[in-house]
Amino acid sequence: MRTVTYGAACSLDGFITGPNESIDWLHYSKDVAQIMTEYWADVDTILMGRRTWDFAVRSGAGSDGGGRVSDIKTYVFSRTLGSIDAPGATLVRDDAADFVRRLKQQPGKNICLMGGSDFARTLLAAGLVDEVGANIHPILLGDGVPLFSASPRTSLELASCRSLDGGCVYVRYKVATSLPT
Amino acid sequence: MRTVTYGAACSLDGFITGPNESIDWLHYSKDVAQIMTEYWADVDTILMGRRTWDFAVRSGAGSDGGGRVSDIKTYVFSRTLGSIDAPGATLVRDDAADFVRRLKQQPGKNICLMGGSDFARTLLAAGLVDEVGANIHPILLGDGVPLFSASPRTSLELASCRSLDGGCVYVRYKVATSLPT
Repeated sequence: MRTVTYGAACSLDGFITGPNESIDWLHYSKDVAQIMTEYWADVDTILMGRRTWDFAVRSGAGSDGGGRVSDIKTYVFSRTLGSIDAPGATLVRDDAADFVRRLKQQPGKNICLMGGSDFARTLLAAGLVDEVGANIHPILLGDGVPLFSASPRTSLELASCRSLDGGCVYVRYKVATSLPT
Repeated sequence: MRTVTYGAACSLDGFITGPNESIDWLHYSKDVAQIMTEYWADVDTILMGRRTWDFAVRSGAGSDGGGRVSDIKTYVFSRTLGSIDAPGATLVRDDAADFVRRLKQQPGKNICLMGGSDFARTLLAAGLVDEVGANIHPILLGDGVPLFSASPRTSLELASCRSLDGGCVYVRYKVATSLPT
């Protein structure tokens, strides 16, 4: 079955963007480039909530799923958006858990769940997230959009841990158990 | 000058205790025992806020600074506590930053700042914390007492990173810059 992964670069205190959506603290390196290249080679689908979509559009990255691979299919989950006018992007108004459960049973590559935490919580609580990861940056931000928020208690298994250029720490976990609340 | 360190075991989403102060998820191992033995050998002073003191007393660990070393001096910072009746523990009503600044200039071993985040934020904002660390456990808790909360934006330098028994990841940082807010 296709694997759903959730992860992002974050601060040590767990924010994927700082106050005022700041991302000036993000450190890009050859290490990150290599990880991203390997990751995206196995992904053909992106899932995101409405807030992340809005952020992607504002950042100019919405039209092609982040500019990564042109044949990636993006599903944007929202009950308030009227429509989406972007190649490769589809608005989904159905129940997110039901939709993703069906999607995982269809043939295809892996599925990338993009932050933030509200949409991730929904899929974590439904037991639909298979892996989580974080590129922990050496900074405290104090406020912003969290990587995780009010998650259901979830046991993880450490899959790998390594330090990257710039004092970053890259951790990957398999989701072991999730107790829906 | 004496080093002030702040750190704790925490979940991947940054909680040092879970809902209802749960710590059933903490994993103790030979790795942790070795780290703690080496850490406490260089420490002779513990700083904590009132909430952490209350937790320590409820846990039966307050009377001797956690049962670690009998000659450790514990300072409890509170303007609401009337008195403290425990050997080795002293109530401090003075401004915490002023007190710790003076303490660091006195001769002695290193100083352990114990969670939670409210008291740590005060000393981080005053630029008085030299090192932070975390033993990141492979679990999401969703709620509880955070390791960091509303911290001032603070740049860190990764000092070490290693995986421990049980899928834990131990990270240590030097505090590089702190911009008081």
